[in-house]
Amino acid sequence: VGGGRGDVALITLTTDFGLSDPFVGIMKGVIASRAASVVVVDVTHGIPPQGVLVGALVLQQAAPYFPRGTVHVGVVDPGVGTARRPLCIETAAGCFVGPDNGVLSLAAEAAGIRRVVELTEERFFLPHRSATFHGRDIFAPVAAALATGTSPDALGRECGELERVALPAPRTVDGIVHGEIVYVDHFGNLLSNLTPEVFPTGPFAVSLGDVRVVALSTAYAAAAPGAVLAVVSSFGLLEIAVRDGSARDALGLGPGTPVQLIPR
Amino acid sequence: VGGGRGDVALITLTTDFGLSDPFVGIMKGVIASRAASVVVVDVTHGIPPQGVLVGALVLQQAAPYFPRGTVHVGVVDPGVGTARRPLCIETAAGCFVGPDNGVLSLAAEAAGIRRVVELTEERFFLPHRSATFHGRDIFAPVAAALATGTSPDALGRECGELERVALPAPRTVDGIVHGEIVYVDHFGNLLSNLTPEVFPTGPFAVSLGDVRVVALSTAYAAAAPGAVLAVVSSFGLLEIAVRDGSARDALGLGPGTPVQLIPR
Amino acid sequence: VGGGRGDVALITLTTDFGLSDPFVGIMKGVIASRAASVVVVDVTHGIPPQGVLVGALVLQQAAPYFPRGTVHVGVVDPGVGTARRPLCIETAAGCFVGPDNGVLSLAAEAAGIRRVVELTEERFFLPHRSATFHGRDIFAPVAAALATGTSPDALGRECGELERVALPAPRTVDGIVHGEIVYVDHFGNLLSNLTPEVFPTGPFAVSLGDVRVVALSTAYAAAAPGAVLAVVSSFGLLEIAVRDGSARDALGLGPGTPVQLIPR
Repeated sequence: VGGGRGDVALITLTTDFGLSDPFVGIMKGVIASRAASVVVVDVTHGIPPQGVLVGALVLQQAAPYFPRGTVHVGVVDPGVGTARRPLCIETAAGCFVGPDNGVLSLAAEAAGIRRVVELTEERFFLPHRSATFHGRDIFAPVAAALATGTSPDALGRECGELERVALPAPRTVDGIVHGEIVYVDHFGNLLSNLTPEVFPTGPFAVSLGDVRVVALSTAYAAAAPGAVLAVVSSFGLLEIAVRDGSARDALGLGPGTPVQLIPR
Repeated sequence: VGGGRGDVALITLTTDFGLSDPFVGIMKGVIASRAASVVVVDVTHGIPPQGVLVGALVLQQAAPYFPRGTVHVGVVDPGVGTARRPLCIETAAGCFVGPDNGVLSLAAEAAGIRRVVELTEERFFLPHRSATFHGRDIFAPVAAALATGTSPDALGRECGELERVALPAPRTVDGIVHGEIVYVDHFGNLLSNLTPEVFPTGPFAVSLGDVRVVALSTAYAAAAPGAVLAVVSSFGLLEIAVRDGSARDALGLGPGTPVQLIPR
Repeated sequence: VGGGRGDVALITLTTDFGLSDPFVGIMKGVIASRAASVVVVDVTHGIPPQGVLVGALVLQQAAPYFPRGTVHVGVVDPGVGTARRPLCIETAAGCFVGPDNGVLSLAAEAAGIRRVVELTEERFFLPHRSATFHGRDIFAPVAAALATGTSPDALGRECGELERVALPAPRTVDGIVHGEIVYVDHFGNLLSNLTPEVFPTGPFAVSLGDVRVVALSTAYAAAAPGAVLAVVSSFGLLEIAVRDGSARDALGLGPGTPVQLIPR
C-alpha cells in the first residue's frame, strides 16, 4: 500500500458532499497536514445525497483506472455517528476506506478482498471527533496514514464480514432480457444494469417506456441528430442516449425504468 | 510562510467563482507559472456570488485543518477594480490573501493576526491588470510569491486596520437563547449562529419557524427517517437537519430564520 | 514539450463532462497510472454539453496563463467513436490534445501552430477502447505520454489541416458596431464578441435588447447597486453586467442576443 508506483502515493475521494461547502477542502487539509507529498484526486463529490448504491457503482467503475497501491476513500454515510463500523478493506489493487454500509463493497470485491479491518485505533483519527463528519475526523487521517506507509494491520482489528450492496440482477424470461435503469449521467444518458454478457445472442431491439430502439449503435453520432439510440457505454453497461441531447429530458425517464431486450 | 511542512508549499482557494468558467483554472495556471511545485487545494468555489460573510465563515472553518505556513486566498470581491485595498494578512497559521472587505477577517482573527500588509508592490502582480479579475491579476501571483518564500514585508506597506465582518450575535433574554440560521449546506442542513457555549445549561428544546425539536440528537441516524432533528454540526454550530433528507426543502426555511433555544 | 519549467510537467483538462460522474476522476487515474509525477489542473468541466465553440473560447482564454510546455487536453466531442480524427497540435506554447472538431483550434492558432499530428499510434492508447469515452481511452493516455517526454512525432502522422471554429465576426455599418452575446458566465455576466479594437473611436452607448448603457464602467462597483453596466471583461471582451446581480436573470438575455455600439 502506498508503494508500487515510485515515490508518489495517491488518495482518491468519492463522496456525496458536493462542492459548495468546504467539506472536501477540509478533508484535503487534513490529508496535507499528515501526508504532505500525497496526491489527492477527486473521483466525484456528486453522488446523490445518501446514495450508497450509486456511490458503490461509481467507485467500482473508477478504481481500476488508478495505480496499484492507491488508497480509495468512499464516504456516502447516512449512518455517520452511529454504530456502523468504519473500515479499511485491503485488496490486491489498494485499500478502500469508508463506512461499512456497502459503499466500498462493489469496488473492493472486484479488486479482490484480502482483509477487512475495522478502524478502532483512535490514535490515527483526529483528536476531536464530531458525530456528523467522519470523512474529516476518521477517513481522511486514516487514508493519510495508509498513504504514508502504515499497514492496515495497525489500524484496528480484522473482522470477517462487510455490508454489501448489489445492482438489481437482470432476468431472462422466454428469451426476453429484463433489466432497469440504474444510473443517469451528466449528459442525461440512461445507464441500465445490462452488460453484453446477458444480451440475447442474435439481433435484438431495446424497449423502455414507450420507446423502442431497433439496434445497437456503434457511437452517439452514428444516430441521426435528436434520435434515441442504444450503445454499450464506457461503463460496459447498455445505455440509452439521445444524439446531441439528453435522454432523461427527452424521454422523461430515470432510475428504476424497466428495460427489455427483445430478440428480433 | 511557505515552510513548516517540509518541502511542499500549499495554497488554498476560496471564491465565489463557481466551476463552470475557466476562472479557477486560470488562477492555477498563474500559480503554476510562478510556483511550479506548489500544491493548490480548492476549499470551495461555491460561495454565493458576492457572499462576503459566507466566504468569511467558510474560510474560518476550513483554515485550521491546513498545515502551518499555508497561504489561503479568499476572493469574494464585489468591489474589484475600486479603491478597496488588496491585502496580505500574516498570522500564526499562515498568510491570508484577498480583498479588504472582511472575507479574510474571521479566519485571520481566529488564527492570530501578526501584521496586515496592503499589496502595493506591483512587480508581484501580473503585468497587465483587468478591473474585474484580481484573483488572476493580483491575488494568485502574490500567493505564488508567498508560497515560494517572499516575505509579506516585501509585498507592500503595513497598514493598521482591516475591514471586519461578523456573524449576528446570539442574545439571551429571560433564559431563552435567540439566534438565527446563517448557512445552508449542500444537504439542506440549516446551520445557526449558536455554539454550545451559549446553550442553556439544562435540557432545552429548539424552535424555528413552526418546528419544535425537543432534544439534541447525537447523530443524523439517531432520529427516525424523515424526522426533523438538531445536532451540533461539524462546524461546532447548532444545526437543524432532516434524517435522510433536506431540512431546507422539507421546512422551506433558509438563512435569516430565527432560532430559539427554550429551557424545558 | 513537458519541459521548460523545471521538473514539473503539467496537463490541463477542459471538457463538457461535468463533475457529477466519475469521468474526470477516471481520466486523472489513467494519467496517474502512466505519469505519476505530472500535475493535472482542471480548467473547467462545465462547458455546455456538445458546446464545441464555447469549449474552444474557454481554452483559448485559459491556455496563455499556463507555463510553456503544458499539455492542454480539450474534450468536447459529440462525434466520439466516428471517423473524426484524434489530434495532437504542437504549438510554441505546448501541445493541445483532443478531437478534430475545432475545440482546440482557437487556442492552438493563438499559440502558433507548428505541427498537426493525427493520433494513429494505438500503443499509446488504452488497450480496450470504448466508442463513447475517448477522453479516457485516447486523450488522457496520449497526454500522459507527451507530459513524460514522448515527442508528438511518435504519436502518429502529420496531417495538413484541422477543423476550425470561429466566433461570429463583428460588423460596422454606418459607424455602428454590431456584435452579439457569445458567452454567459457563472455570475450571469453577458460577454459579447466585441473587443476594444472594434470599439468606435469616440464615446459610445451600448445597446442590447431593450437596454441602453450610456458609457463603459471602469469596474462593477463603479455602477449603482442593481444598475446595468458595461465593462471590458477579464477576457478582453465587452461584457454587460448588473452590479451585485445577474444580467442574465435581470434582463432575460443570453447567447445570440445582438449588441450594438452606437457613437454618441
